[in-house]
Amino acid sequence: MQALIIEGPNRLRLAAMPEPPLPVGECRVAVKLAGICRTDLELLKGYMGFRGVPGHEFVGVVAEGPERLIGRRVVGEINVPCDLSKYARPEFDPRHEPERTVLGILRRPGAFAEALTLPPQNLLTVPDNVSDEEAVFTEPLAAALEIFEQIHVPPGERVLVIGDGKLGLLVAQVCALFGHRVTLHGRHERKLALARRWGVVAREAEAGSTERYSLIVEATGSPAGFRAALELVEPRGTIVLKSTYAPDALPPFDAAKVVVDEIRLVGSRCGRFGPALRLLAQGKVDVRALIDNRKPLAQGVEAFELAAKKGALKVLVRISEQ
Amino acid sequence: MQALIIEGPNRLRLAAMPEPPLPVGECRVAVKLAGICRTDLELLKGYMGFRGVPGHEFVGVVAEGPERLIGRRVVGEINVPCDLSKYARPEFDPRHEPERTVLGILRRPGAFAEALTLPPQNLLTVPDNVSDEEAVFTEPLAAALEIFEQIHVPPGERVLVIGDGKLGLLVAQVCALFGHRVTLHGRHERKLALARRWGVVAREAEAGSTERYSLIVEATGSPAGFRAALELVEPRGTIVLKSTYAPDALPPFDAAKVVVDEIRLVGSRCGRFGPALRLLAQGKVDVRALIDNRKPLAQGVEAFELAAKKGALKVLVRISEQ
Repeated sequence: MQALIIEGPNRLRLAAMPEPPLPVGECRVAVKLAGICRTDLELLKGYMGFRGVPGHEFVGVVAEGPERLIGRRVVGEINVPCDLSKYARPEFDPRHEPERTVLGILRRPGAFAEALTLPPQNLLTVPDNVSDEEAVFTEPLAAALEIFEQIHVPPGERVLVIGDGKLGLLVAQVCALFGHRVTLHGRHERKLALARRWGVVAREAEAGSTERYSLIVEATGSPAGFRAALELVEPRGTIVLKSTYAPDALPPFDAAKVVVDEIRLVGSRCGRFGPALRLLAQGKVDVRALIDNRKPLAQGVEAFELAAKKGALKVLVRISEQ
Repeated sequence: MQALIIEGPNRLRLAAMPEPPLPVGECRVAVKLAGICRTDLELLKGYMGFRGVPGHEFVGVVAEGPERLIGRRVVGEINVPCDLSKYARPEFDPRHEPERTVLGILRRPGAFAEALTLPPQNLLTVPDNVSDEEAVFTEPLAAALEIFEQIHVPPGERVLVIGDGKLGLLVAQVCALFGHRVTLHGRHERKLALARRWGVVAREAEAGSTERYSLIVEATGSPAGFRAALELVEPRGTIVLKSTYAPDALPPFDAAKVVVDEIRLVGSRCGRFGPALRLLAQGKVDVRALIDNRKPLAQGVEAFELAAKKGALKVLVRISEQ
């Protein structure tokens, strides 16, 4: 099969490789469409020393596996316990299983390939009225919703999202959906205009502004975004850290402020796919507006280059037309 | 009146000074007993550029103020809004009022003096069965309880308290009271033995231990304590930062871990006095065991020296015998 392979820092190429063997208890999925995420770009830069096929945002069709799933169009949760029998435990959550693989991120080949494997427990059937180009956003939309799995945010909070990238825009949109008063700080008029469509007050950050927020989502992935969040958060407010930082470190920060103002910082990663798919099926979230480019797998390296450009939104890679 | 005065970094002296004028709407309290807190030692080192009379843990008797309070033995919440009319607002909380003074910490003379002033709204009458030496712990006990005002901790959590100082010992004791499984990491056998009395597993930290905790309270006030907390916290666990750090900064830390493991960090400061006084009145918390030394105000400078010694627990300053 054809696949995009990270061979080392900043070395990505399209290559023919054998289909991955089908592990016991897993399904083979023919990938239709995959999205390039900021994490993929970080992996390509060297984050986590990644080698192999990246990609964790996809929609595909089940080719091998339990009868009931064959031919179904699916998306897939990306964390897999090494011991699949753990799925039998009530309330088992693979997202924080210490012995896990993560699709296209950790010891499991990803979605920029004609086929991938995942256990059936990870797969969710995509409703017919959700297109491939919408379904491929299930993973990042779930990541945006994850914030509200972690913390209780009463409707009407003053929320600030810092960063007008793909994830920041999704988070702002979701926050607006819940009745919060949402402000987005970004740098690209094109993206800010998008956010305004969704009822978000979107603008560049203003130096010296005295507005403060009870919830701030830091979605820039840069130390500057974190510093801004610490300045703009209300006493007893919450800062959600939504991006994995490539250099493995936040800068030193004003711990006295965190204690005196009783700030809480919350790291936030993967969400559940069910609620995200439901929102997509109900047409509640506009994800198509986030698509900047579509490329076939044959032009996958170029697709990554486009995705890495300053200000780029989502670049999709069409793996198969079937 | 006599008072201890911080005149600059590491310059503390006992001096005669005029009684503070009585602001409109406040009470004058004759201080009986005051406790030396780690924050007082930090102020003396230069934290917040403090000048004046420190001290925010006290018990005293109301000398001037509303008739109903005169002669009452009281403790006092330490945050005061600059505009006292704000107390009329429902649910007003002076702890995070931006325009506030803080007894012995921020623009308000403190308790190491024969008299202090506070508004009647800040004062709580001490039940007769609570001795002065117990009542003086109301403030730090409230600070320990504050953790549970901020976060929901279901009974039975695996809690680790790092640091066997005064606050760490109070926090460990309170956690044990709530049915949690509490471990205390400390360095002083004498203090660890104290904690064991309260049902706490108390020991030195063991390098290479694989035990992980869903809640960690960092009460050492040192960057090393914070680093240890990040290592020992479970995925989705919480680290409570309980001490204000003198150098104003935490070291750079592994932000990727905070995000990937969805850790939450919570700064925590002042608590409500009511619950703390109730626990003292019911004899539920052993504070007397934390008293290392008692000195009269005339030996207040020496009392501070004793409190600053490595391994010291609470040093009390007897201001008046009345």
